[in-house]
Amino acid sequence: MDALPQPGLALGHEARMRIRVGAFTGCTAGLAPGNVQANLVILPQALAHDFLRFAQANPKPCPVLAVSEPGDPSLPTLGRDIDLRTDLPRYRVWRHGELVEEPTDISHHWRDDLVGFAIGCSFSFEEALTEAGIELRHITRGCNVPMFWTSIQCAQAGVFHGPLVVSMRPLRPADAIRAVQITARFPSVHGAPVHLGMPEQIGIRDIAKPDYGDAVPVGPDELPVFWACGVTPQAAIAAARPEFCITHAPGSMLITDLRNAMLAVS
Amino acid sequence: MDALPQPGLALGHEARMRIRVGAFTGCTAGLAPGNVQANLVILPQALAHDFLRFAQANPKPCPVLAVSEPGDPSLPTLGRDIDLRTDLPRYRVWRHGELVEEPTDISHHWRDDLVGFAIGCSFSFEEALTEAGIELRHITRGCNVPMFWTSIQCAQAGVFHGPLVVSMRPLRPADAIRAVQITARFPSVHGAPVHLGMPEQIGIRDIAKPDYGDAVPVGPDELPVFWACGVTPQAAIAAARPEFCITHAPGSMLITDLRNAMLAVS
Repeated sequence: MDALPQPGLALGHEARMRIRVGAFTGCTAGLAPGNVQANLVILPQALAHDFLRFAQANPKPCPVLAVSEPGDPSLPTLGRDIDLRTDLPRYRVWRHGELVEEPTDISHHWRDDLVGFAIGCSFSFEEALTEAGIELRHITRGCNVPMFWTSIQCAQAGVFHGPLVVSMRPLRPADAIRAVQITARFPSVHGAPVHLGMPEQIGIRDIAKPDYGDAVPVGPDELPVFWACGVTPQAAIAAARPEFCITHAPGSMLITDLRNAMLAVS
Repeated sequence: MDALPQPGLALGHEARMRIRVGAFTGCTAGLAPGNVQANLVILPQALAHDFLRFAQANPKPCPVLAVSEPGDPSLPTLGRDIDLRTDLPRYRVWRHGELVEEPTDISHHWRDDLVGFAIGCSFSFEEALTEAGIELRHITRGCNVPMFWTSIQCAQAGVFHGPLVVSMRPLRPADAIRAVQITARFPSVHGAPVHLGMPEQIGIRDIAKPDYGDAVPVGPDELPVFWACGVTPQAAIAAARPEFCITHAPGSMLITDLRNAMLAVS
């Protein structure tokens, strides 16, 4: 008997192959719809353990989907034949915290001691919210989600530390309750919100002035709902100023073979 | 091989036997700790189908745990040897909407056409919240939970209709989020909240003036969180003024053999 068809695998692999040969260098939003996309962090092995400890201690902002073997650019649990050196549309190369290059291929930077981390991103839970009929303001308006530094400090691990960064989505109360239920099912992509209402309680002074992304209006019948954000580990890495580091460029994510629904824990 | 011990069954049965022989006529709070307690509604069969349709259409305020066979005072799925005529400490007997008697035994009122409904109550999810370290203000203060009429109308079924009644618990935002997650696991005892923050959106003008129960303070760092309440079906029955009806007396619940944790769906 044949195996069931695997649309996610085929879609993800096809998208990566297009990216690998240079046929696509843009934003991955909308590619392989329904497939999990991941943030990428690549660090020298000397820092990898501390970074993984940071992630372990701060799972909401830093949910690790997979860690590569040192020197091995594949991530077999996330997709067939993934090559972290070529399969993202664009990368950022950092030396001592400074951005030095934005290449579309990092083969020339690869080293035997590099470790790749794929980190869950909110695209996956946003699909579940949208499927449930919940309007996401930044999507309706075609802009980036607003993100804010908070007064909540992450647990430190080695050189990695810093504040929790959150994304904000305005929702009516009944939708906020459903959004908690829906996103709680997806702990590997930030999970349930960390806060709702009362932005001042987490150190956000002006909801109209995000620290990253674009401002969106919060209606008088809406509460701001805050989720832990993948910018948190990026900010912790930037603050740590590692001698060498590679990340995805904003919006240029790793497309996996997994379907978003596969990440649900219940 | 022997079966595992069943503490809930033994505890519930023992409590019911004490009540049946008249050795206990008070409030059931604290009896058979950890066992599910249920609201009781007994209606003539002619009204039972409409009431069950009302419950089906309004599952959050009216979660049915079990329905008896007409004329049969047992509920075997909820406990061994339950007798609805004797096993609650105190009942209320209603004729055409008027309270006519508060007996400790309803054997003299029993009829072959009566149908008993056991309806889930918030005691079960409150145990889960308390176990999770969430403070419940009305418990800390030793008073009744505050309850409010809302502007939300229940779906009508036959003669049964009326507004949704909600209970309110003030929680800090992070606790409110966890409370949504925890109570969503218990749909048979009201489930996730129906609203949070912004009481005016659901027609509540003064959070300090509940329609039932006792007022509790909402701190400046807290949100009022609203759950559907079992007073809703009681109010719908009172408004329908059935020719005959029996309910539990407030605080005098049916103690079952089920453990609260058995009601969790995930």
